[in-house]
Parts: sequence; structure tokens; C-alpha cells
Amino acid sequence: MNLPLNTGLEDVQNTPDKRQLDIDQVGIKSLRYPIFFQSDELGPTRVVADFSMYVRLPHHVKGTHMSRFIELLERPEQVFAVGNMNTFMRDMLDLLEAENGHVEMRFPFFLSKAAPVSGVTSMMDYDVTLKADIGKQFALTVKAEIPVTSLCPCSKKISEYGAHNQRSLVTVEVEVDDSLTLDQLIRMVEEQASSQLFGLLKRPDEKFVTEYAYDNPKFVEDLVRDIAGTLDKAPAIGGFRVECENFESIHNHSAYAMIDRL
Amino acid sequence: MNLPLNTGLEDVQNTPDKRQLDIDQVGIKSLRYPIFFQSDELGPTRVVADFSMYVRLPHHVKGTHMSRFIELLERPEQVFAVGNMNTFMRDMLDLLEAENGHVEMRFPFFLSKAAPVSGVTSMMDYDVTLKADIGKQFALTVKAEIPVTSLCPCSKKISEYGAHNQRSLVTVEVEVDDSLTLDQLIRMVEEQASSQLFGLLKRPDEKFVTEYAYDNPKFVEDLVRDIAGTLDKAPAIGGFRVECENFESIHNHSAYAMIDRL
Amino acid sequence: MNLPLNTGLEDVQNTPDKRQLDIDQVGIKSLRYPIFFQSDELGPTRVVADFSMYVRLPHHVKGTHMSRFIELLERPEQVFAVGNMNTFMRDMLDLLEAENGHVEMRFPFFLSKAAPVSGVTSMMDYDVTLKADIGKQFALTVKAEIPVTSLCPCSKKISEYGAHNQRSLVTVEVEVDDSLTLDQLIRMVEEQASSQLFGLLKRPDEKFVTEYAYDNPKFVEDLVRDIAGTLDKAPAIGGFRVECENFESIHNHSAYAMIDRL
Amino acid sequence: MNLPLNTGLEDVQNTPDKRQLDIDQVGIKSLRYPIFFQSDELGPTRVVADFSMYVRLPHHVKGTHMSRFIELLERPEQVFAVGNMNTFMRDMLDLLEAENGHVEMRFPFFLSKAAPVSGVTSMMDYDVTLKADIGKQFALTVKAEIPVTSLCPCSKKISEYGAHNQRSLVTVEVEVDDSLTLDQLIRMVEEQASSQLFGLLKRPDEKFVTEYAYDNPKFVEDLVRDIAGTLDKAPAIGGFRVECENFESIHNHSAYAMIDRL
Repeated sequence: MNLPLNTGLEDVQNTPDKRQLDIDQVGIKSLRYPIFFQSDELGPTRVVADFSMYVRLPHHVKGTHMSRFIELLERPEQVFAVGNMNTFMRDMLDLLEAENGHVEMRFPFFLSKAAPVSGVTSMMDYDVTLKADIGKQFALTVKAEIPVTSLCPCSKKISEYGAHNQRSLVTVEVEVDDSLTLDQLIRMVEEQASSQLFGLLKRPDEKFVTEYAYDNPKFVEDLVRDIAGTLDKAPAIGGFRVECENFESIHNHSAYAMIDRL
Repeated sequence: MNLPLNTGLEDVQNTPDKRQLDIDQVGIKSLRYPIFFQSDELGPTRVVADFSMYVRLPHHVKGTHMSRFIELLERPEQVFAVGNMNTFMRDMLDLLEAENGHVEMRFPFFLSKAAPVSGVTSMMDYDVTLKADIGKQFALTVKAEIPVTSLCPCSKKISEYGAHNQRSLVTVEVEVDDSLTLDQLIRMVEEQASSQLFGLLKRPDEKFVTEYAYDNPKFVEDLVRDIAGTLDKAPAIGGFRVECENFESIHNHSAYAMIDRL
Repeated sequence: MNLPLNTGLEDVQNTPDKRQLDIDQVGIKSLRYPIFFQSDELGPTRVVADFSMYVRLPHHVKGTHMSRFIELLERPEQVFAVGNMNTFMRDMLDLLEAENGHVEMRFPFFLSKAAPVSGVTSMMDYDVTLKADIGKQFALTVKAEIPVTSLCPCSKKISEYGAHNQRSLVTVEVEVDDSLTLDQLIRMVEEQASSQLFGLLKRPDEKFVTEYAYDNPKFVEDLVRDIAGTLDKAPAIGGFRVECENFESIHNHSAYAMIDRL
Repeated sequence: MNLPLNTGLEDVQNTPDKRQLDIDQVGIKSLRYPIFFQSDELGPTRVVADFSMYVRLPHHVKGTHMSRFIELLERPEQVFAVGNMNTFMRDMLDLLEAENGHVEMRFPFFLSKAAPVSGVTSMMDYDVTLKADIGKQFALTVKAEIPVTSLCPCSKKISEYGAHNQRSLVTVEVEVDDSLTLDQLIRMVEEQASSQLFGLLKRPDEKFVTEYAYDNPKFVEDLVRDIAGTLDKAPAIGGFRVECENFESIHNHSAYAMIDRL
């Protein structure tokens, strides 16, 4: 697939470079491509991913082989999964004739959830990013963006009735081994929120989540601490970073907190 | 400023066109430019606006004069205001040698607001867009994007305690005469919300807005109806469109409603 | 699926409203959902679509049934297609007990393309939006966002060598009957550009597209005129709007043109 | 301004926390505020900045004082500048009763540029971000996003005529001392591009930049190397990171390269 066409056209990228400057990352960015991803629930599932794919370029080479990154995605019957990114990264180094590489792939991921009282099911969406690094060693993190409800403890405490609440976005980036699924990671986070979100709620469900959130008030500081405490105890998770952004319902800015253990 | 340089370079845009197709709008888009805008509170105020500027091109002309749109913004001592867009539009038609034109300029606008109990002041930001059309007649609308709090009446009614609430974005586009200021338009909208937003709230203020929102529950349908009712009664306002999007705190999608009287 | 639970909880949305104001559109916005779409090439294909789904609400009703919009998407074995949106829209009116409705669904669409000389294949991505309206009649438009290359005729004409060129985004919105496929619509547009884009190009392909674009210089005005001329002749297409935005390589703003025959 | 109101309302944030987890960053995010920034050309200039302001929170404290971040921006007669961020950061630590802090402020910055042949002037826009860290020491970086033209050397070399070119975005983040102005930093980058951009170009200017870019073909790899080489030689600049993204005119994705010396 990668045999050079004997085109007689000069290969400018392959000429020597004398500026004595290594390039840390070079490649393609913001490439949307349809791929198959291994879902625990559905098996191999078609998703559209946004790819960034880079290699390290030594100082004596003028340019990388941009088109080969695309060739990597055109291989038939390729199914991406948390457990096989290692192989994909080694293939990239081989094809690009490089020694270090970095790939990020971001795609929407869905869970089918049952409403808490009525049990009606609907899909919830999450953005997931796999980040892989390869050099002498291979490293992988999984980043998930998980929307939840937060309800302000201060507002609840000082008010005669009511409490301001809002949608929040929790972002966790974790070093995982293969034994942890995306479903498990997402559910670990959602259980620490004032309430989790649902696509479809009937009236008894709406009553339930309203009261549940009021019974579980959390500051943005509480959210990152409670999630960090949970991730810290999970054997399948190594380092992690947890961020939370509350889209405050009483302000036009966000409250934000972050704990970094990566 | 617009005298042609005698460059000896061919003016391709000015050659005839035989495809018999008028172009409804042609010009420049997404141009950021620093300008002065007449603020009621501060006088001429520097803002960075995002401009789209178009003219109609008759079928027999190949291209418009793109660079002249920029020249229009380089005129010294120009202060934009709701009340002088008419003049600006006529200048554009003259310079572009056109009979019809359309301009949109969008910029962030700020009000200094006092918190409801403590009285501490802070700035609140709103995106404002002026849309001007000129042909045989001149027409202007002002669009303002106004973030507010909405609190769900159903959630309040069916729950033992609490009620889900969230940030909402109200967008009003109105035909105005010069007697209505941006401040007045924004305040007319904010008064119809479950609560307005503030940059800075101390604890007594947070108690106040929490209870105020709980006392004023509104569906997205209520918000657009109450705002439409208010705009309808304002003598300085002609046609209008009001939209509201609630960034639901219990879902990962929005509730939306719109009344169109433009 | 929509039988009311006998919950004893009050249905606030179903109470009467006395403000005498119809709501033009009310429903849900920015809902991401995985669905199946009928692809000409691949058959039913999983895509993640961004939905906005609205109905008209008469003045005497307080609120719509927000959760029912989600129920519509949870029906098993539903495959969306240009040819069956009519049925989907009638189902929405039935379930929502409404007389008028509007739906927009936006999703990334891909074509597998062969490079012009080497013949290597790769995917190209396009954003497609179906917009359906139903009342006494049904109407459907298809909007496609198609990135292409534009090369400036003026720059070519006045320069000793070279010509500035750039990526452009053509947006066409067309009234179609079932006989026109998305592939056909996209290819009709791409053929009018200075050059079309490809995911993967080898050196002989890069030489080809470079020279092809230089041989086909087009202003933004030329692009919308040539595309309008093509759409106008297609029997399967009724009204249309064509827009083109050139992300100018010599400026930090865009050139834009639009012909509206909708 | 920050004297506690004797409100009798409990201060929940000030209660002890027992989870034994420090929070690396907590504060407010995505706050738009109008401020004054010291411009070399214009003196104190009104800009609208997007602020993120965080402090470190020790494990034994439950929450930070969110409202005090806003108070910091409400101080009259405050003019921001590269040279006085140190003072601002120390004030933040004092007011927030914290030992470590991080602030990012992003705003559009403009240079008035003369076209290369005609000399007509127009504004060019750049996004600038100041990032300040304070703890035992103070550190500041300046990030500037600078759009330029890139022209592909391979396309030029292998083609009979023409060469694909496009807008590129160079992002430099540099450790600076006070002796380097934003103007100087931006011009150092622009001089390394295939061509710089202008708001307003007349035909002789368009001829000039077209030919200039054709005479200066650069890969994305060349751009980051040439800019890195220039920054490396500037005495006022310490560490730096330079990224370049080419919005390829022949693809729908970007080429990207990065050299990191931060």
C-alpha cells in the first residue's frame, strides 16, 4: 500500500535539513474519519472520530509523510478499542519511519440509561478522547466529558426554599488498564454528582431527580474531591486528572475546580 | 481615498459577466475590527465588532470591490450608533457603487449592575448584533442575547422540595426607533425571567436570587410569551422575534421556544 | 409507549393559558442521538445526528410534551432517509398532538473518493442537514456543506507567477425529490470549484490538483453563479440557496457570496 | 470592599473539610470583562478579555471565595500590562487568602499595518493570552495566535505552474521580560511566513503578496523551525513553544507541527 510510485517527481520532504531543530510533533490535525470502535454493549460500532496524529521528526529530515497518516485509517476491518491502541501506534511508527508518536481520537459515546422511576430508556451522550503516546514505552489515557447536575450547598443552606442548580461538565482523564470499560468510568463519575442526567424523564422521574439533587448539594470543590476519591480507590485506574465546570445558573460565567494526579 | 491607482494592472472584477445571474449578497464576512460605539452610559466606547458587509451585484458585473468594505471602517472619527446606521449604509452603497446592501455587526455589550441586596456593582455581558438593510428603503433591527435564570414550574409543583433551574439564553431581535436604548431593551427582557443574572453576588444576594427564582417559576413557553407580551406593548418597538433556549440542568439538551412577529 | 402513568402528579403543562399568544416553535434543541441513516453506498448506516424538533403550540395551551420528542427517536428499527421524513413528521404531529412541526437533523456524511491520478481512495467529510416542515403540506430541504478549493482569478492575472488560493466552504440548501442522492448533490457542487478536496493525495495527485486549480481560477462570485447555474438545470431540484465562503489566504477574513432561490 | 457583611448567613465555604484532598485550581472560568490594557501604540486601551482565575485550595478548607475574583476586576483605574501582572497576582493571593494562583486572560489585539506597495493602512487582529502563575515565584508567558500565509514547497516543485497555499495559524507561547512588546513578537513571527496577512490590499499589493509567497514556499515544518530559530536568538525571550496549523487548501484537514522549548 505504501510502495512509492515511480513518478519521477522530486520528494522535497525527504531532503536533508540543516537547521539543527528536532520537531516534537508533526502530522495531521482535525481529520474527521468514520471508524469502528469496540463498544462493550454493542460490539464494533461505527463512530465518526476527530483525529490528531503526530510523530517526532529528527533534526536532519526536512518533512514527514503527511499522506501516510490517512493511509493508516483506510485499512479494512480495523476496529479501534482501548485494548489495541498499542498495536495501532506501532503500525504508525513503522509506516511513518518514526520513533515517537502521539495520537488523539475524540468521538461521541452513548449509554442507554433507564429513568430512575418509570424505567423508560434513552441515550445519553458523552465525548470521549483516547490519547496514546509511544516511544520506548507506550502510554494511554482515556478522557471522558460527563455532564451532570450540581446543586449549590450555600444557596440551599442560606435560602428559605429552593437552591440554585445547573448543568456541570466533569472532565476526567485517566490512565487505565483494559479491565475498565467506558461505561464503568462514566458511571463512577455520575454517582458522585448532585444528580446524573437523562435523555428522557417522565413526571415521576423529574420529581425524583429534583429531590435527589436537593438532597445531595455539592460545590464544584466537592465534585472534584468526591470524584478524585473514587478514582483513587479504583484498582484499574492509575494517575488521573479531574476537572469540573459549573455553568452557574445565577451568573454568566462558570465555577471551576481541578485536581491533577497525572 | 478611493481614486484608482494607475497601476496598469487589469481589473478583472470589473469585466462583464454573461451568466445572467444576480448575486443577492456579496462581500466580506467574519472581519474583526476595533470601532467606537455610542454607549448611553459611557459615551463613545471602543468595542471589537465582528462584521459581515454585503451588497447586491447585478448580473452583468463579474465581481464586487472587496477592499472597499475595509476602507469604510478605516475612516477616522467614525462612531457607530443605532441612530446613525442609515448614514453608514448610504456611504457603503456610494463607495461600492451598489443599490442594495446588508450589514451585520456583532459585539459584546456590558451593563454595570448592582446586586439586589448588598448593592455591590459588577459588569454583565451581552452579545448585541445590529442588522441593517438598505435599498429603496432603510431597515434596522437590533438583536440582543440575554442570559437569565429559568426555574421549572412542573419540577417545583410535583416535588416535595427544590426545583430544577438553569441558565437560559433569551435572544430578541427587534425593529426599534432611536428612542429605545440597549439598556432599556435588556432590562425589559431580564424583568420577565425567573431571575436575572449578576457578575458579583454576596451571600445575602445569593439568598435573594435563589428565593426570587423559586417564587417565579417559568417554562420556556412562559418566558417567550411574557417577553413577547412586554415587547408588544413598548411603543418604540415594531416587529420582533423572541427565542429562549434553556440549558436544562436535568438533561444534556436544551428546551427551546420561539415567537416570531418580524 | 405514551400511555400516561397514573402518577397522581399534576400535569402543569396541560393547564390552560390565557395570554392569547401562539408559540411558533417549541421543543428540544441540540440533542445528539445515534440513529440509522439510509446511505446509497452503504445501506442503513449508524450516524450521530444533532436534532432540533419543534411543534407549533396554540395560544390556549400552557406547554408542550417535551419528553415525547425523545420517545420518537427511541423507536426500534427506525431508519432515517430523505425519502421517509414525511412519515416521521406525521408521527411527530400525532404523538405531540400538534398541527405544525419543524425538524432539523445535522450529521457528518462521507464519500469514498479516488485520488485523480494514483486512484488511492480515502473518505471526505461533509455536514448534511435535513430540514422538514409539516402543516397542511410537507416540505423538505437538504443542506450540504461542501469544502472545496478556490483560486483567485485577479491574483493569477496580475501576478508574474503563482496565485493565492484557499479552502472555501460551499453551502447549498435545496428542495429535492427522492431521485437525487446526497452523492449526486455533492458531486454537482464539487465539479464547479477551482478544485475539489481529497483526504489522501500522493505526489502525482498533488501535482494534478495544483495545476487543475490554477487552470480553473474562480472568484467567490463565480462559484455561486456556476453552482446556481448547475442546480438550476437539475430536474430533481426545485428552489435552492447557494452560499460560498472563501477563507482568504491573504486576509484574516472571508470573502462571501450568496444566491437565494428558495 | 471585602469587609464581611454581618448577615447572620452561614458561610458554608469556610467550614472544614476532611477528605484530605488539596485542590490544584479552583475559581472562575469564562468570565468576559471589559478592562484597560496598556498598548504600546495607543496607551491604555479598552479591551474585552476572557478571564480564568484560579487559586490553590488546601485540603482542610471546603471552598474558595468565588465572588472575590470578580471584585478584583472592579477596582477603578486598573490598567493591565505585561509589566504589572505580578502586582495583580499578589493582590489576588491577598484577597483570596491563598498561596498559589493562576490567571489566564485572552483578548483580541490589533496592529495597524501598511500594505506593502500602496501603503494603505488597515487593522489586523490577533488573539493574545497572558498566563500568569504565582506561588513562591512569579512566572508569566505571553501566547499570541498569528494568522499567516503558507505556500507548499512540494506543490511548487512538482507542478508546472501554481502552488497550493492557505491561511495558517501560528501560535507562540513565550516567556518574556518587559522589554519585548506584543508588536515586536508578532512581527518576528510574521517575517518567517511565506507571507504575512493584511486587512486591506489594493491590486498592486495583491500582486506583491502573491509573488512574495511563491518566492517563499514553506512547509509547516519549515515554519515552526524558522520561527523557533528566530525566537531562540531573541534576548528578551526565554523558553517558548511554537505551533503551526495549516488549513490545507487541498484537504479538509490541517497539517500541524510543534516545537516545545517551554
